[in-house]
Amino acid sequence: MTDDLDPALIEDAYALQSHLGFRITGWKPDWARFEQPLEPYLMNRYGIPHGGIYATLLDTVMGFAGCYTGDPENRLLGMTLTLNTSFLARPEGMRLIAEGRRIGGGRSTFFAESEIRDELGTLCARGTGAFRYRKAS
Amino acid sequence: MTDDLDPALIEDAYALQSHLGFRITGWKPDWARFEQPLEPYLMNRYGIPHGGIYATLLDTVMGFAGCYTGDPENRLLGMTLTLNTSFLARPEGMRLIAEGRRIGGGRSTFFAESEIRDELGTLCARGTGAFRYRKAS
Amino acid sequence: MTDDLDPALIEDAYALQSHLGFRITGWKPDWARFEQPLEPYLMNRYGIPHGGIYATLLDTVMGFAGCYTGDPENRLLGMTLTLNTSFLARPEGMRLIAEGRRIGGGRSTFFAESEIRDELGTLCARGTGAFRYRKAS
Amino acid sequence: MTDDLDPALIEDAYALQSHLGFRITGWKPDWARFEQPLEPYLMNRYGIPHGGIYATLLDTVMGFAGCYTGDPENRLLGMTLTLNTSFLARPEGMRLIAEGRRIGGGRSTFFAESEIRDELGTLCARGTGAFRYRKAS
Repeated sequence: MTDDLDPALIEDAYALQSHLGFRITGWKPDWARFEQPLEPYLMNRYGIPHGGIYATLLDTVMGFAGCYTGDPENRLLGMTLTLNTSFLARPEGMRLIAEGRRIGGGRSTFFAESEIRDELGTLCARGTGAFRYRKAS
Repeated sequence: MTDDLDPALIEDAYALQSHLGFRITGWKPDWARFEQPLEPYLMNRYGIPHGGIYATLLDTVMGFAGCYTGDPENRLLGMTLTLNTSFLARPEGMRLIAEGRRIGGGRSTFFAESEIRDELGTLCARGTGAFRYRKAS
Repeated sequence: MTDDLDPALIEDAYALQSHLGFRITGWKPDWARFEQPLEPYLMNRYGIPHGGIYATLLDTVMGFAGCYTGDPENRLLGMTLTLNTSFLARPEGMRLIAEGRRIGGGRSTFFAESEIRDELGTLCARGTGAFRYRKAS
Repeated sequence: MTDDLDPALIEDAYALQSHLGFRITGWKPDWARFEQPLEPYLMNRYGIPHGGIYATLLDTVMGFAGCYTGDPENRLLGMTLTLNTSFLARPEGMRLIAEGRRIGGGRSTFFAESEIRDELGTLCARGTGAFRYRKAS
């Protein structure tokens, strides 16, 4: 999967990313992919992945999809306005693979969609979102 | 806040709950409240709470709100179908307080709404969801 | 209900408004109300109001709620980014009453929530939305 | 487009369908398409199609997508639980073309996604929804 990710673009994991254990495996114009191993600490009251884990991944891949620049020195930052998630099926595999895609928008806002499959191909969740760009710090 | 929660209803924290550190502080018919201290490990790429943390809390309080029975021996279980989250403002305090409320539905599905404020009263996020009941295991 | 609406703020009905028959009955800062008689031409395949009618009203009241200025010469215009609707119950009355409320945002975007009841008080639908301001034409 | 629609499956237009003027142009397992000419009476306060028109079409095509049976004597009926709509761009053409697709679910509920383009291919809106099956009357 090296074609999907320029190593120069990999940032240090931020705090929640380290705490949950997901990592970027693809980032190209208008598109991003993250993967999350299904660790025991992600499970809900029923022993299956908590819906919030799906939402976390969907939000993440859509935000990155809309903020690709290809230049680590020139970062584009996005804030989520709204995030909608549908929960379709529970995973049968060991890993969640989330992909996000920018589907529209302009200079101030953008729209994205996303999905999560496990490594066996089971479609587990879908997401859509509206985002706002903000100035880099 | 003891009037809001019968201690007999407090369940052992499940896996993600322990990992993130949120806990129940209120549960009554059609209503639930959880609280989440703003620990450093919850932060995103920009150093503010990750949107997925809000989604996790909103999903949790709405699910509990619709599944109250008042009887630990007779649990009602719910599965999230859809979760919609709006991100309104960043917190200024040290703690997120999430409340969920069942607002409609019947025997097979229910609807809920929710909000997150910090302990200073700042409205940080709103959520809505549709849920399906399932048989207790 | 005259306290809720300054007659000077009532605009001519726009095209879809005339075609469906809804009208404004309240407009104050961060809040708006419209009413829609349940005419036969609003019904779906099952003889009940089409979900799109609820969505039309929810979108309308939230847009107006966020664009109140109190000055007909100084109009604020909003574009819907995302609209989420939950369908809770079918109406038992003859009229839909939709209310929208701005709940957050800033100068470029705003968030709103809304609900539809019939004149008997039945809660039929809930909505949330994110909007973007645009320049007046 | 005759391959997309068995004429035996075309139902009489229901009330709102006649009032707005949209019609079915495709219906196959897990998929449906409707088209809506951009008549002047569909326009909003700004002279562009009202968001509720998009929501009406998205709701319609997703409901039909999930309720295909191929047998006019054996109808499957669906009720919308939640409908989420994103508004991406205004149309440049004369006609809205809405397509819906069932993407998951089981015997009691289903999930669908949808999009609206004009006849020039401009992507105008996206929708997702959760639905519940109900018994035929």
